[in-house]
Amino acid sequence: MLKKQLEAIVGEKNVSTRSSELYCYSFDASQAKGDPDAVIRPHDSGQVAAVVRLAGELGLPVVARGAGSGLCGGAVPVNGGIVLDMSSMDQIIEIDIDDLQVTVEPGVVHEKLNQALSPYGFFFPPDPGSTAMCTIGGLMANNGSGMRSVKYGTTRNYVLDLEVVMADGKIVRTGSRTLKTASGYDLTDLMIGSEGTLGIITQAVLRIHPLPRARSVILASFDNTALAGKTVVKILSAGIIPSACEILDSTAIETVRRYDPTVELPDAGAILLIEVDGMQNAVKEEADAVGKVCSELASGIKVASTADESARLWNARRLVGAAISRIDPKRTRVYVGEDIGVPIKELPGMLEYVRSLSEEFNIPIMTYGHIGDGNLHTGMTIDMLDENGMERVNTVADRIYRRVIDVGGTVSAEHGVGKARESYMELEHPTSMYVMRQIKKALDPHGILNPGKMGL
Amino acid sequence: MLKKQLEAIVGEKNVSTRSSELYCYSFDASQAKGDPDAVIRPHDSGQVAAVVRLAGELGLPVVARGAGSGLCGGAVPVNGGIVLDMSSMDQIIEIDIDDLQVTVEPGVVHEKLNQALSPYGFFFPPDPGSTAMCTIGGLMANNGSGMRSVKYGTTRNYVLDLEVVMADGKIVRTGSRTLKTASGYDLTDLMIGSEGTLGIITQAVLRIHPLPRARSVILASFDNTALAGKTVVKILSAGIIPSACEILDSTAIETVRRYDPTVELPDAGAILLIEVDGMQNAVKEEADAVGKVCSELASGIKVASTADESARLWNARRLVGAAISRIDPKRTRVYVGEDIGVPIKELPGMLEYVRSLSEEFNIPIMTYGHIGDGNLHTGMTIDMLDENGMERVNTVADRIYRRVIDVGGTVSAEHGVGKARESYMELEHPTSMYVMRQIKKALDPHGILNPGKMGL
Repeated sequence: MLKKQLEAIVGEKNVSTRSSELYCYSFDASQAKGDPDAVIRPHDSGQVAAVVRLAGELGLPVVARGAGSGLCGGAVPVNGGIVLDMSSMDQIIEIDIDDLQVTVEPGVVHEKLNQALSPYGFFFPPDPGSTAMCTIGGLMANNGSGMRSVKYGTTRNYVLDLEVVMADGKIVRTGSRTLKTASGYDLTDLMIGSEGTLGIITQAVLRIHPLPRARSVILASFDNTALAGKTVVKILSAGIIPSACEILDSTAIETVRRYDPTVELPDAGAILLIEVDGMQNAVKEEADAVGKVCSELASGIKVASTADESARLWNARRLVGAAISRIDPKRTRVYVGEDIGVPIKELPGMLEYVRSLSEEFNIPIMTYGHIGDGNLHTGMTIDMLDENGMERVNTVADRIYRRVIDVGGTVSAEHGVGKARESYMELEHPTSMYVMRQIKKALDPHGILNPGKMGL
Repeated sequence: MLKKQLEAIVGEKNVSTRSSELYCYSFDASQAKGDPDAVIRPHDSGQVAAVVRLAGELGLPVVARGAGSGLCGGAVPVNGGIVLDMSSMDQIIEIDIDDLQVTVEPGVVHEKLNQALSPYGFFFPPDPGSTAMCTIGGLMANNGSGMRSVKYGTTRNYVLDLEVVMADGKIVRTGSRTLKTASGYDLTDLMIGSEGTLGIITQAVLRIHPLPRARSVILASFDNTALAGKTVVKILSAGIIPSACEILDSTAIETVRRYDPTVELPDAGAILLIEVDGMQNAVKEEADAVGKVCSELASGIKVASTADESARLWNARRLVGAAISRIDPKRTRVYVGEDIGVPIKELPGMLEYVRSLSEEFNIPIMTYGHIGDGNLHTGMTIDMLDENGMERVNTVADRIYRRVIDVGGTVSAEHGVGKARESYMELEHPTSMYVMRQIKKALDPHGILNPGKMGL
């Protein structure tokens, strides 16, 4: 019955109800699981609206899904229902350089957008590690960002206007094609980061930015992570905003080395990879300034001399999250407590705390991430045969989350809340959760949009 | 009775109910008018919360007010009620350079914040023309911006966390002290630009930015405004993002000259003032690039050679909005249709259209503003003795608004909607007004927060 109704909307070949197909949509890159009743592949906003209206009539959950690369279960149908696989809505509709904007469908893969913009000398600055697979829709749903957010900000800073299908099946435009506006409530930013719980994004107008003329990467080594953290505080408070500022701890360095021995990383307790970008002359001036600040606490400083060397360093950095799972076949990475954000000056203390937890609970933790904006990824792995390994990992994650909240941080800086972190929402937002629930209730009174997420 | 109840909350000396005092709060810098029942000056969020609760019990409107420099009636109690004069909550609570943030009360005057940050080498980038009087609270309520938004964005881009008193009197924190977050709905951005209709901001954590090491100003002259508009399109699409890009049409040039004869501006149909900032060497490189692009269509180009010359040019630019009213004592400026925003490539056509309306309706229109982000200020003046002058001005404003919406623009780029523009909200947001109303109804079910605004 449901199958027939969905087929009438999107066509026979765009509906899946076989269990072998449904299985593929029952998980993402996190531990969350949930079986959908049906999966559909819509091709335009009209189809999405019709499906949402049908779901409303039937009281069925509707869950939008991009690439399924999410790390918190955001796209997993934990209460069943209809999964909307948005990957067929993957058109770059218009590249409008004069207006500094591009119009895309949500299924566009991040990397493809930047490949299309590059010949014009422009780019879309958010740069998630999952660029090769993640979709712009998923990035918007989670307010993703990546390595360059320290200077360029998050996805939120680049969305001018959205087309959204609301829970009642109406199709709404949230913003404006102008570069700034002071007219009306900011529905665009309300949708960004709402993880499909307030509406389903079917089109986006994104602001784009000129590609920098030059970039330079500085690699600074430190005896321990806390010294690296202190250096980040010094760089930023000295008035230098790098285009990227990444940390790799000793485990992360070791992981990169074992995964790709051709990448030359120094022996160190931690390294910072600091990129500056801009006009040719400015880059040299800023790289010198960064080097000077680093020299106070670093044990070694190296400037990548060629574009190729820089590219290899960034490649190594990108690999590290995935690489850790491949180093030891007996161990597997568990994505909990993996995306914390803290105020900059809390970084050294936080890094030290994570290290102490690793020792106390005998859980290897590789710490890396976008330290320049306070965002740390803590990669925990467990031995699959370790009886209480999962329990210890969860305890460590819980300790990390609680400390993060204690110091004014956030349990997710860029990966989202989804199912994985929903139990910490009240703790992080003790005064405002009820406001979020009021909004959710107002815009989705029957709770059909991605239920069971974000602690709503 | 009301007076006594309010005095019990904020103290006798912080309540005004005398008509001579109330009069001062019955208007702002727009044409909107409305008499309050009482004015209070709260000193902390607890007092604000108590007043909001009282207003809820009595069913009285509550209207927050900063400096009263708004141009759309946002702070005018058009339905009566209690005005909260927030100017006593004017403390800079903490300057936290390490975390790149500052915590302020909403009554802090914009200029004072930047004066306080300057010794640390930092600044708060939004820079409204009313810097000397407007408050950070008013700026946030309207998502104000100013000259440097072309590069630095609007107020929205710099607010990390807010303390807000909701309509039910609860005190809520909306964000995080981290530089980025992907946890929960973006209540911060929902509050920014909501003009006091969803909550009353009582504290804000703002991100700050390092002061650029150098700045350079290029003055380019053009035969007409359309050529200047075309040049702006060329500059941006060439991949140059100036820190400011302002236009003055011939009336604006003449106004500045008559107001301050010492400012040397060329005879021209229009001028662009283009500022680039950054590292010392980059500024020179970028200024050269700007000059090269301008030279294609400009009749003359001049680079301000000293900081003093730059300062005098910016000062002239800042004067122009106020100056026009003082040139001819018989004429007065009317703030309607004065804050439009259009996509960049619509600028030349829009400038031409405004000029043609000026001729058709015999209304002098001085056009100036932040053309680099598509934001034009159209300054209309009328002869006070002109019988149907006001009617003609309103007709011109109506034509301007409709054209702006036709080309995908916004009726307010930075001044807000308030009372002045509420009748255009349905036109600009035909699909999403009902969503805004759903949110308003959910968060302020009895409609006590700044009623009669934004077309809600």
